[in-house]
Amino acid sequence: MIKIAVLGYGNIGKAAIEAINAAPDFELAGVVSQSLENGALGEIPVVRNIDDLRDVQVAVLCIPSRKVPDIAEEILLKGISTVDCFDIHSETYNLFTRLDVAAKKGRSVGVTSVGFDPGIDSAIRALLEAAAPKGITFTNFGPGMSMGHTVAVKKVAGVKDAMSVTIPVGAGLHRRMVYVVLEEGSDFNTVSAQIKADPYFVNDETHVVQVTDVDAIIDRGHSVKIERKGVSGATHNQRFSFEMKIDNPAMTAQMMISAARAAIKQAPGAYTMLHLPPIDMLYGSQEELIRRLV
Amino acid sequence: MIKIAVLGYGNIGKAAIEAINAAPDFELAGVVSQSLENGALGEIPVVRNIDDLRDVQVAVLCIPSRKVPDIAEEILLKGISTVDCFDIHSETYNLFTRLDVAAKKGRSVGVTSVGFDPGIDSAIRALLEAAAPKGITFTNFGPGMSMGHTVAVKKVAGVKDAMSVTIPVGAGLHRRMVYVVLEEGSDFNTVSAQIKADPYFVNDETHVVQVTDVDAIIDRGHSVKIERKGVSGATHNQRFSFEMKIDNPAMTAQMMISAARAAIKQAPGAYTMLHLPPIDMLYGSQEELIRRLV
Repeated sequence: MIKIAVLGYGNIGKAAIEAINAAPDFELAGVVSQSLENGALGEIPVVRNIDDLRDVQVAVLCIPSRKVPDIAEEILLKGISTVDCFDIHSETYNLFTRLDVAAKKGRSVGVTSVGFDPGIDSAIRALLEAAAPKGITFTNFGPGMSMGHTVAVKKVAGVKDAMSVTIPVGAGLHRRMVYVVLEEGSDFNTVSAQIKADPYFVNDETHVVQVTDVDAIIDRGHSVKIERKGVSGATHNQRFSFEMKIDNPAMTAQMMISAARAAIKQAPGAYTMLHLPPIDMLYGSQEELIRRLV
Repeated sequence: MIKIAVLGYGNIGKAAIEAINAAPDFELAGVVSQSLENGALGEIPVVRNIDDLRDVQVAVLCIPSRKVPDIAEEILLKGISTVDCFDIHSETYNLFTRLDVAAKKGRSVGVTSVGFDPGIDSAIRALLEAAAPKGITFTNFGPGMSMGHTVAVKKVAGVKDAMSVTIPVGAGLHRRMVYVVLEEGSDFNTVSAQIKADPYFVNDETHVVQVTDVDAIIDRGHSVKIERKGVSGATHNQRFSFEMKIDNPAMTAQMMISAARAAIKQAPGAYTMLHLPPIDMLYGSQEELIRRLV
């Protein structure tokens, strides 16, 4: 049994506990949370610090991306492996090199940027390039709620609550549907103009819609379609597409638990979904997996 | 530069040479063929035995599946890594264990069952199970020509030439469209009944169509759609699909060259597409690949 700790108890943390409970080879050591009281999760220990849990081999970091670098590094240096769902694409490589140093020092394994995208999408994009090295890959997101865009809208003056939905329009371009609840006395046209001028929205076709309740329209389902048309050797017109329609936190958390299984099989260092052999993420004997999946 | 040899000069061997020529990091040492004369490929050396080529690091085996086990083992024992496109699913695990012994003895790497299916499909099936461990995966082939079924039809008495096309009917089931040229004097209904009773066809809806020329309808394009509906943690209704529409030998050969790139980065032993880290199959620095694909 792999002893695992969950850091954070948001949507992804809750789903991680479900994925651990459904896996035959994991034992949940406990949940590290700054807000939950011990006893809040029944028999599952709740602690403030991972040091208060015993013999943890791997920790899944279900915490905001901004907090990942410092916390992952600290845990890796303790000799405990980590899996995170850091999702700021432009900063992944720097985090990877930083965690690589910490993991090698701590003799642990840090798997970073696991989940939806970055995550399974990253591995798919790599496989498609292996099959057809020349060509263009388009990653089309949605329909589904975008966390980053939603947070950006909520910061606009006059907005009480909001949700931003991403709609794919093809070729990796997206339309943004923004649903807002206004604060009393604020002007819809002013708010709408401000949202459309925000760096998150200024390059996309953006529609702002006034609603009275955001909670009633929130749905965690998300979608992606990855398309590649490319060249294998000298042969053009090779076509590939990958599609997912999923509950986003559930799939992200599950992928993190599968990556945690792989983590304990790797040599010390940092890894992404591009680095993990797919077989290491699965439960079962090598013989059974090869016979069933190859 | 990775020094590579190509064994065999059929559709896949020809496509492998094209993929090697298109790759910036490979140097073609030569082609091993029992039928080609030296000089037949211009400046590319043609030899009868791989021992006649110098400093070969990896050999791609573009030869019939039945010949793979003995030849791969022999080459691995020489200390040369191999990549094969062995496609008899039921025998893959035994071959894997056999090549593992030879590769460890020879300090080489044997990557087996690379290509379409087994191949990229195997890696996709594994990733989908990592994302949703419970559920059913359907692999739907076609429309496209099936080599195995075509060979079976050609063995039926009264058949002069044939082609069997696989049509997907959903849920991993297939319809077979068999195009036959009859030998003079043979009876269509007798031939058709014999084909439908053959073990290759007896369980599938099979249609036999008489034609005057098979060559005029042969097309190397093939297709697959892999579908999975499964459970991530405790969350049902997670949906995935992967689709390819490709020139089959070109994609198979390209995947073998990408796997050859990965082969020289692995520790001695046997590997399948389930075992290779996707990043190792791609050309480029780790930094560039992580920044672009993760």
